[in-house]
Amino acid sequence: MPNHERRDDEKRILVIGLGRFGSSLALELARRGWEVLGMDSNPRLVQTYADALTHTVIADSTDEEALRQVGAHQFARAVVAIGTHLEESILTTSLLVDMGVGNIWAKATSRRHGRILEQVGAHHVVLPEHDMGERVAHLVSGRMLDYVELEEGFALGKTKAPKELLGRTLQETRVRQRYGITVVSVKRVGASFTYATQETILHKGDQIVVAGRTDDVERFAESQRP
Amino acid sequence: MPNHERRDDEKRILVIGLGRFGSSLALELARRGWEVLGMDSNPRLVQTYADALTHTVIADSTDEEALRQVGAHQFARAVVAIGTHLEESILTTSLLVDMGVGNIWAKATSRRHGRILEQVGAHHVVLPEHDMGERVAHLVSGRMLDYVELEEGFALGKTKAPKELLGRTLQETRVRQRYGITVVSVKRVGASFTYATQETILHKGDQIVVAGRTDDVERFAESQRP
Amino acid sequence: MPNHERRDDEKRILVIGLGRFGSSLALELARRGWEVLGMDSNPRLVQTYADALTHTVIADSTDEEALRQVGAHQFARAVVAIGTHLEESILTTSLLVDMGVGNIWAKATSRRHGRILEQVGAHHVVLPEHDMGERVAHLVSGRMLDYVELEEGFALGKTKAPKELLGRTLQETRVRQRYGITVVSVKRVGASFTYATQETILHKGDQIVVAGRTDDVERFAESQRP
Amino acid sequence: MPNHERRDDEKRILVIGLGRFGSSLALELARRGWEVLGMDSNPRLVQTYADALTHTVIADSTDEEALRQVGAHQFARAVVAIGTHLEESILTTSLLVDMGVGNIWAKATSRRHGRILEQVGAHHVVLPEHDMGERVAHLVSGRMLDYVELEEGFALGKTKAPKELLGRTLQETRVRQRYGITVVSVKRVGASFTYATQETILHKGDQIVVAGRTDDVERFAESQRP
Amino acid sequence: MPNHERRDDEKRILVIGLGRFGSSLALELARRGWEVLGMDSNPRLVQTYADALTHTVIADSTDEEALRQVGAHQFARAVVAIGTHLEESILTTSLLVDMGVGNIWAKATSRRHGRILEQVGAHHVVLPEHDMGERVAHLVSGRMLDYVELEEGFALGKTKAPKELLGRTLQETRVRQRYGITVVSVKRVGASFTYATQETILHKGDQIVVAGRTDDVERFAESQRP
Amino acid sequence: MPNHERRDDEKRILVIGLGRFGSSLALELARRGWEVLGMDSNPRLVQTYADALTHTVIADSTDEEALRQVGAHQFARAVVAIGTHLEESILTTSLLVDMGVGNIWAKATSRRHGRILEQVGAHHVVLPEHDMGERVAHLVSGRMLDYVELEEGFALGKTKAPKELLGRTLQETRVRQRYGITVVSVKRVGASFTYATQETILHKGDQIVVAGRTDDVERFAESQRP
Amino acid sequence: MPNHERRDDEKRILVIGLGRFGSSLALELARRGWEVLGMDSNPRLVQTYADALTHTVIADSTDEEALRQVGAHQFARAVVAIGTHLEESILTTSLLVDMGVGNIWAKATSRRHGRILEQVGAHHVVLPEHDMGERVAHLVSGRMLDYVELEEGFALGKTKAPKELLGRTLQETRVRQRYGITVVSVKRVGASFTYATQETILHKGDQIVVAGRTDDVERFAESQRP
Amino acid sequence: MPNHERRDDEKRILVIGLGRFGSSLALELARRGWEVLGMDSNPRLVQTYADALTHTVIADSTDEEALRQVGAHQFARAVVAIGTHLEESILTTSLLVDMGVGNIWAKATSRRHGRILEQVGAHHVVLPEHDMGERVAHLVSGRMLDYVELEEGFALGKTKAPKELLGRTLQETRVRQRYGITVVSVKRVGASFTYATQETILHKGDQIVVAGRTDDVERFAESQRP
Repeated sequence: MPNHERRDDEKRILVIGLGRFGSSLALELARRGWEVLGMDSNPRLVQTYADALTHTVIADSTDEEALRQVGAHQFARAVVAIGTHLEESILTTSLLVDMGVGNIWAKATSRRHGRILEQVGAHHVVLPEHDMGERVAHLVSGRMLDYVELEEGFALGKTKAPKELLGRTLQETRVRQRYGITVVSVKRVGASFTYATQETILHKGDQIVVAGRTDDVERFAESQRP
Repeated sequence: MPNHERRDDEKRILVIGLGRFGSSLALELARRGWEVLGMDSNPRLVQTYADALTHTVIADSTDEEALRQVGAHQFARAVVAIGTHLEESILTTSLLVDMGVGNIWAKATSRRHGRILEQVGAHHVVLPEHDMGERVAHLVSGRMLDYVELEEGFALGKTKAPKELLGRTLQETRVRQRYGITVVSVKRVGASFTYATQETILHKGDQIVVAGRTDDVERFAESQRP
Repeated sequence: MPNHERRDDEKRILVIGLGRFGSSLALELARRGWEVLGMDSNPRLVQTYADALTHTVIADSTDEEALRQVGAHQFARAVVAIGTHLEESILTTSLLVDMGVGNIWAKATSRRHGRILEQVGAHHVVLPEHDMGERVAHLVSGRMLDYVELEEGFALGKTKAPKELLGRTLQETRVRQRYGITVVSVKRVGASFTYATQETILHKGDQIVVAGRTDDVERFAESQRP
Repeated sequence: MPNHERRDDEKRILVIGLGRFGSSLALELARRGWEVLGMDSNPRLVQTYADALTHTVIADSTDEEALRQVGAHQFARAVVAIGTHLEESILTTSLLVDMGVGNIWAKATSRRHGRILEQVGAHHVVLPEHDMGERVAHLVSGRMLDYVELEEGFALGKTKAPKELLGRTLQETRVRQRYGITVVSVKRVGASFTYATQETILHKGDQIVVAGRTDDVERFAESQRP
Repeated sequence: MPNHERRDDEKRILVIGLGRFGSSLALELARRGWEVLGMDSNPRLVQTYADALTHTVIADSTDEEALRQVGAHQFARAVVAIGTHLEESILTTSLLVDMGVGNIWAKATSRRHGRILEQVGAHHVVLPEHDMGERVAHLVSGRMLDYVELEEGFALGKTKAPKELLGRTLQETRVRQRYGITVVSVKRVGASFTYATQETILHKGDQIVVAGRTDDVERFAESQRP
Repeated sequence: MPNHERRDDEKRILVIGLGRFGSSLALELARRGWEVLGMDSNPRLVQTYADALTHTVIADSTDEEALRQVGAHQFARAVVAIGTHLEESILTTSLLVDMGVGNIWAKATSRRHGRILEQVGAHHVVLPEHDMGERVAHLVSGRMLDYVELEEGFALGKTKAPKELLGRTLQETRVRQRYGITVVSVKRVGASFTYATQETILHKGDQIVVAGRTDDVERFAESQRP
Repeated sequence: MPNHERRDDEKRILVIGLGRFGSSLALELARRGWEVLGMDSNPRLVQTYADALTHTVIADSTDEEALRQVGAHQFARAVVAIGTHLEESILTTSLLVDMGVGNIWAKATSRRHGRILEQVGAHHVVLPEHDMGERVAHLVSGRMLDYVELEEGFALGKTKAPKELLGRTLQETRVRQRYGITVVSVKRVGASFTYATQETILHKGDQIVVAGRTDDVERFAESQRP
Repeated sequence: MPNHERRDDEKRILVIGLGRFGSSLALELARRGWEVLGMDSNPRLVQTYADALTHTVIADSTDEEALRQVGAHQFARAVVAIGTHLEESILTTSLLVDMGVGNIWAKATSRRHGRILEQVGAHHVVLPEHDMGERVAHLVSGRMLDYVELEEGFALGKTKAPKELLGRTLQETRVRQRYGITVVSVKRVGASFTYATQETILHKGDQIVVAGRTDDVERFAESQRP
């Protein structure tokens, strides 16, 4: 088991719960060179990720002794990715808080669950189902290819370059004045995304990323014939 | 029950499954003025959203007759937001495909589940737990405030304005040349996000959105002292 | 484990699911000299057929890795004989399709289940309960000893030789003109079935097989006093 | 409820159990004009077939009183199509036997189950999963389009007309002498099946039904290039 | 495992099911010198009686192979003491019947269960709960100390010697003429039971066994002041 | 509900639990003219016996209030015929004891269960499975037709009249001296049982009841050729 | 439903969970004239206490809407007496905290459960099983009749007056100096407890309450012959 | 296993059930030097306390043989701390009673459960949930800091020293005459509790323990402004 002092800048993390959310997160971090300790009470899940993660351990995270034995208190960062069992999620988070883990991300399945995790002391709460539901809501009309709200009221949207913007510089289209949005990136057919400036000229088949107020991005996407 | 012809440009949608993902999506669309028919076999969930959605119905979506009675075949768009029961998710999607619904979004809980939904005929497949897991993986280090990959290899990240970029125009900082990323939006303290240009000057406390290749965005975030 | 290239004319087959249907099928093929690999997640079933089949393996067929380890991708033919768990049946079929198995027979328990198996990519779907139900429906009146519909609208029936046909050549009885059916085989008392011609003369106690349109075969059987 | 004397030649039947097997059987008989009383303890199944069958009733067939109330003792024919619960299947059959129903068909899920049904007094026992398993075993090689064994040792098979039989009368092909089988029916491209005689000439694309000893039919099918 | 020929006069027996009924029976026979093979699928029950019985075996009695391995077919006598699971009870009895065990006693939990066991071929059927219920019904009034009906209409009852019979020979009391019952045994205070004759004189505190028609025994008991 | 004072000589009884044991007991008493109040928490059982018993009530006998409402405290006699749930059996008995019911019979499923019922205050404890197991142990050899132990060490047995006793008076056979048993009843072919005296002469085909010490009865039965 | 402003000095309380702990607490308060609103999701429990408590309501306390409808937010005091379901206990407490209930007592079943309740915001946490376990630990030796630790290190114990203290004033016994404990109350035979002073003289049969440090009380009790 | 004679004054005890109540009790006794044998059927619980208790054993306490093997019959004292399973609690107590354990403490979950334990022979019965419920009822108003009823009608309460008693000797306050209670202990700010006399003078911030009749203690606490 790892035997470290807690240093906040280390790329070390404890991921408890190796279901869909936890395993995706853990694998992504491992790919980027982090030292990941993956823990789950389900032996099958642990085995699945044993090769891909730095360390894995089969343990009951609601058992304080078990957490200590794997050195949970020595991590500066932990993710509680237990979703289905509210009780386990809360117990585990409570234990990590009392062990002094400084940066705890916890997954919640409902707003109240999230609230309790905050009351117990989690530093960040994530609601994957809820957040993705809202994000996909912007895509079902087919006008947008992707959409993300970076904070309350400010969003980015990916769309095909609309007909009315083609063949002129973006400045000439006055898209910023008319829709309140800015085209920030453009992807030519067959190429990757790059930044756009006011001088950029869009062509048929280009994809663009626009930024702006939530309503404006939405309104822009809907006003265009795809 | 609604009695419509299918028109692709109508803001009408059928949402099957009112759990976390489905309800968030349905509520977001309803807020934006869509006519939403919410369906679930759980009476309690249906009751919870009865006021917020245009129509709600308690029905078993694996029963073809029940789907027809609510006019499922007359929708141009449907979301299958059934997550926990693989079987119900697949059966429902298969029925909607055979009814000719033109635009089916289906939520999956695993890659194989997603693959089957595609084989059965779903037009779009979403993996919330998986996608959010990867997204959060970029946030746990604390260097980024938000992160989203708009497509394979191209990402947007929200960070605090790093020290080394303060007090000069972005052009002068040569951030684009040095990191391969573009600052596309900026949020002054106490104000909202707005677009950034090469002339924009960042101040202490500003937040910025940068765009660029996945690796570059990541590298930029990690190189800065927060 | 077998280590073969896929050759379509080999007598090799993978049978997944060793319940009633799968085991009967597997045993029949084994009796006829096929190399059969029987797979089931239930150790008891696997043990039961361990001696009778060429190879048997205890494995979860919804686990892609497990399928590969037994060489499932090297079979040109497979039977998915999983009946009770819709989910497992679909997952397994989906995996075999993606592995490129060229000839997949899958058992379904309902028409919709069958439809999904086809959507996922199964090449042949069998509904044993349903088919036998229809077949037995022709036997309960006691007029027919066996009955089988070889395709929509064309059936074969086995009956006792009816009184009115005895003692004359079949041509003289004009049974073909009067009932639209042909007597194709006859079984003398104490002997086996053999072919019948227009010159055949039926005797009391003989059994006959008649061929013809479904309705005609049915009408013929019912018109006779047994 | 029906109030009849038992007459063996009436087209009346009691079908207990409306699962896949029972419902297929009941619907087929109803289509052919029989008076069918369908019984199941599952209200949903009963409701599904309420319109298609003459009478339907929700009742527990292991309750003698319930059976009497629907007049079970007045039927000359009954089908016990209960498959999943061995106990119910046996109890119901035992009750019908003691009520004197003269012609009881019972579905079994295993040979031992079938044996007990016979010991208890069922007149005919059917094993759908088992029988279909054996039947499909003859189809997986792809040489035969259908196959049925009408009795121990005598079978019928449907195949494409093999190359070597084309263009001559069947008599000239000496197929009967060489393979021991008789071509009893032929289906021209675009037409229905009709009877074949020794003078029949097969053409490319025809389908044929052959009759003969099990082994001979199998051997004939395998010897042909499809 | 025992390896015997079946001889009807041997004191060998197979007892399947070691619950209350089966174990009491098995222990009683073992005490009387019988060679008892006790079988149960529950390891704990088998262990409990491992020392007291000649042989014990943990096995599933519905598995024909398992029955053969313990030599069930070589027993001339078997008791099927499986009570709670109707299905197991019937399956096991059916197997023993087909193995030719000549003398099968089977425990039933209901009259219909008993009837099926007879239909399947059990030679004797016992209904412990039912029989004891009827027996105790004669004791609850407190007039009789024990009661048993040896066959339909003929019973034995144990009572205290009633006041009116004391001090005279039984002949003088004319109890036989007046009540239709015979005093067959008597137990003096402090002694054991012995036979009674017409000359026997009862004393206060004696217990007696009377024999007679069911009604007469009952009437006799109720007419006496205890 | 009945509204009585408790009188010990009344033919009134409360039977709690209408399973096999309880219902047999209750029906037997009802047949003999007793006023029986049958209680069970299972509505279906209560309904089954509603007509045959004087009163029936659906109630939870572990609920003191429910017991009082049906007047349980006014009965001089009660039978606790709850077998499967130890807890309910004990709770109910405890309540009846504290209500002062003077004569409580309770059914036990094990010796310890019986012991607890006695500790709690039941006046009589019955072990049907256990007692019948011991009784049947005497019958499996086929020498005895029935057997009952009326008290420790004293038994009655029914057998066919053995060959060696035929044709002479019982006195002449000296059966009492030689075996220690007394023939107390005899049943001629085609007649009912009647008492036997020393002058009785047995004939081929007669059945007899013998009384004596347990061992003597057993030894007598085994010594005879049936 | 009650419609009040929150006033801290009102004798009004909300008790959620009417199991053993909650109902005892609620009944005690009701006896002392408090207005008690008892809530439980179990209809049977609610009915049991419907008469004894001021108001009772069947509701799911984890449903915020349900809590508001009964006016939970208008109570200044609430007891969360949910013991068996950790999740419900925590959810309910979290909701009450967010509603601003000023004085929340919550029952816990383990120290960690208690800790989470505190983290969530409960003002007082009670561990009945744990506390009573420690209390009874002082009684099993039989030297003390009761014992309670009023705070860490200070306890009260009830014992019989020990022999060595009889017949003299307490001052003369120097019990305070010798054992560090003070006799604070005394109960004469046949009377109630009253206060003791240094002048009190104990007699045989008296009971006393002593106060002192935990160890001293324990040592005093053990040193005496009872 | 321990091998002792039973001596009543030994500090040896058997604790059956290591849940919250049992473990707290066992640990408290172990801390005070007792030899504690802890028994539970749950291996995890036994392991948790293996180090803290003298002996621990995994065993089913309803199995007489198992109890004897650990020497249960040699203990003079035992605690049955089984709470959730009524049946196990009663069975275990019954066995210990019959083994002659002289001092049995048993935990009950309801009054009826407690009554049965007494009927079976337990010497002391504890109802933790119930007792704590009543105790906490006196604390929720916030006037008392702790409260305990040492016997029916006599209680001790801990409160802050009320304003009206400050600055004078207790005798001068006439608190005993006016409220019927006696101040028996006092705790100065920053010090421990010590005894109070009539000369004691209370200061602001002191805590006091008062003794008196239940009603008087309650009335005293409520009359004071805290």
